[in-house]
Amino acid sequence: SRNIRLAVIPGDGIGTEVVAEGLKVLEAVGVKIESTHYDLGATRYHATGETLSDEVLQELRGYDAILLGAIGDPSVPPGILERELLLRLRFELDHYVNLRPVKLFPGVETPLADTLPGDIDMVVVREGTESLYAGAGGVLRRGTPHEIATQESLNTAFGVERVVRYAFARAAERPRKKLTLVHKTNVLTYAGDLWQRTVNRIAPEFPEVTTDYQHIDAASMFFVNQPERFDVIVTDNLFGDIITDIGAAIAGGIGLAASGNINPDRTAPSMFEPVHGSAPDIAGQGKADPTATILSVAMMLDHLGLTEEAARVEQAVADDIVERLAGWAGRTTHEIGDDITARVSGGA
Amino acid sequence: SRNIRLAVIPGDGIGTEVVAEGLKVLEAVGVKIESTHYDLGATRYHATGETLSDEVLQELRGYDAILLGAIGDPSVPPGILERELLLRLRFELDHYVNLRPVKLFPGVETPLADTLPGDIDMVVVREGTESLYAGAGGVLRRGTPHEIATQESLNTAFGVERVVRYAFARAAERPRKKLTLVHKTNVLTYAGDLWQRTVNRIAPEFPEVTTDYQHIDAASMFFVNQPERFDVIVTDNLFGDIITDIGAAIAGGIGLAASGNINPDRTAPSMFEPVHGSAPDIAGQGKADPTATILSVAMMLDHLGLTEEAARVEQAVADDIVERLAGWAGRTTHEIGDDITARVSGGA
Ligand SMILES: CC(C)[C@H](C(=O)O)[C@@H](O)C(=O)O
Ligand SMILES: CC(C)[C@H](C(=O)O)[C@@H](O)C(=O)O
Repeated sequence: SRNIRLAVIPGDGIGTEVVAEGLKVLEAVGVKIESTHYDLGATRYHATGETLSDEVLQELRGYDAILLGAIGDPSVPPGILERELLLRLRFELDHYVNLRPVKLFPGVETPLADTLPGDIDMVVVREGTESLYAGAGGVLRRGTPHEIATQESLNTAFGVERVVRYAFARAAERPRKKLTLVHKTNVLTYAGDLWQRTVNRIAPEFPEVTTDYQHIDAASMFFVNQPERFDVIVTDNLFGDIITDIGAAIAGGIGLAASGNINPDRTAPSMFEPVHGSAPDIAGQGKADPTATILSVAMMLDHLGLTEEAARVEQAVADDIVERLAGWAGRTTHEIGDDITARVSGGA
Repeated sequence: SRNIRLAVIPGDGIGTEVVAEGLKVLEAVGVKIESTHYDLGATRYHATGETLSDEVLQELRGYDAILLGAIGDPSVPPGILERELLLRLRFELDHYVNLRPVKLFPGVETPLADTLPGDIDMVVVREGTESLYAGAGGVLRRGTPHEIATQESLNTAFGVERVVRYAFARAAERPRKKLTLVHKTNVLTYAGDLWQRTVNRIAPEFPEVTTDYQHIDAASMFFVNQPERFDVIVTDNLFGDIITDIGAAIAGGIGLAASGNINPDRTAPSMFEPVHGSAPDIAGQGKADPTATILSVAMMLDHLGLTEEAARVEQAVADDIVERLAGWAGRTTHEIGDDITARVSGGA
């Protein structure tokens, strides 16, 4: 089988811990990997002032995929590592699809009452390269009573159309074939109108898909009290950020939420990362759940065409989760990683 | 006792139904009211093309308060009534505090498992006159592959400081005295920095209040799995819109969520409205729960200094809700209104 060239960016805090377990599982699944570690993140920033150099970025373009742990540390002012490293990677590598499944695995405790696994099974297709994440904006008279600060959301027909088309294609593959646009068309009238018109225009290309619209505020509410409404969601970068954290909460917590920053045109490597952050408060204690990273590894395998291997990892996670029910709580990061690795190997 | 001059805008859909019940309760509470109805909304728009004329706006300034039902109808393109009527009222009447309590009443069924009334008891202070709601933005090459659409968030030191100071004052009055800023400082760096610096600068004026910060994505998650984290929240207009709908969901649904669009400087009347919309799908069927409007009436009484009357209405609602537990489900809009009215009168 082919060799996968993988760039690994463990990052900060629990990032390094969970990535180690993800790699363990990846090895056990029996694919040939050539991985190179990059020590990007807070430590490197403090030591050298560097977040992401043009040279490193250029090098990263040469890999088949990137596995990322988590970026961010309280010792660095908010926004620096996020904008100059994490978001720069997403933008430069044109990860226009930020794919975030929201699925309640059997055996997982959800904070929602009377909710069964079948009730929560959706995929959020979050746009990854536009809107308020563009970083446009500015400040005048900073620190004075006359300060004004602006942030600009930039949205293009090009950017919206490609992610909407991707979302339709995903919806067409799923049993329910339902696509919900989430936006705030009644307030963000210019951007919302572009999104809604784009969905309307692409819809006839996918006659088997039914479409639907919800405002972000209503959608957030429905995540909590009617999650079964949703199948595939397509949404803007910021709304997607918010709604996928609600998704993580209802599907059992941030310890299980995986994501892929996808470049569907494959003009650059896609990047896979748990939805959670670096969690400095529990870093180094073996308390982090590596499951989100392991599920992100499964998404990566799937993206690389290794469908059978991806399914094997996902099944191992599903089995491991059922086992938790039977009283396996309190395992360390390593132990969870080892247990899932053993299942993957056993099933090989 | 004094005469309250009240402007009533029932609006669209279930707005008219719930407002009628709110007025019934208001009458029963024994305050002298002089109310004038304004037929603003979809019907007026279709008949005359008018959303809110300068003359009507000027007239509205003369009242002590405004009671609003709901605005919006599918027959009007998204954004027209919202921007030209509802948001115009909030902006022109300088409702810079959009006050939204999130409180689980005993007896209300929450969608969250293992959650008790004491776990959900917070107040969201949503900014009401700035940010992406300013309506700034534009579109170029509409409908072509080269379209770009922008939305601009406008934030001022003046606007942020006054709402932050209000939120600190609210927090100082409450037993827990905790204020959480919710924003997205790691991405919206200019606006987020203004908000965070403002909170830091005002904090010493309220040494008894502890402050805290959460990103909007994390806060949305915590609403679902750790709502007890929050006491008073201060946040931006858009984040407040989203988070208060999650709040409504966890506190038992949109049928119970009240709000006040407050002008704390009293340079113009404040406006009270349920958080829910016009719900055209159930309009005219007597299915709408008027409780959110009745609780908004209580907020209005409180704002007008009628503290005892406000408490009486809130107590009547609390008692009515406990009664629901005992099997009073399935009442019509009128019946709920009548029941609460009877309690208010009985307790007078
Ligand atoms: C860390 C932050 C910049 C990031 C985002 O907002 O996209 C995170 O919240 C996420 O969802 O991956
Ligand atoms: C109708 C809409 C413009 C409004 C808002 O976004 O503020 C509503 O959602 C609300 O929360 O009152």
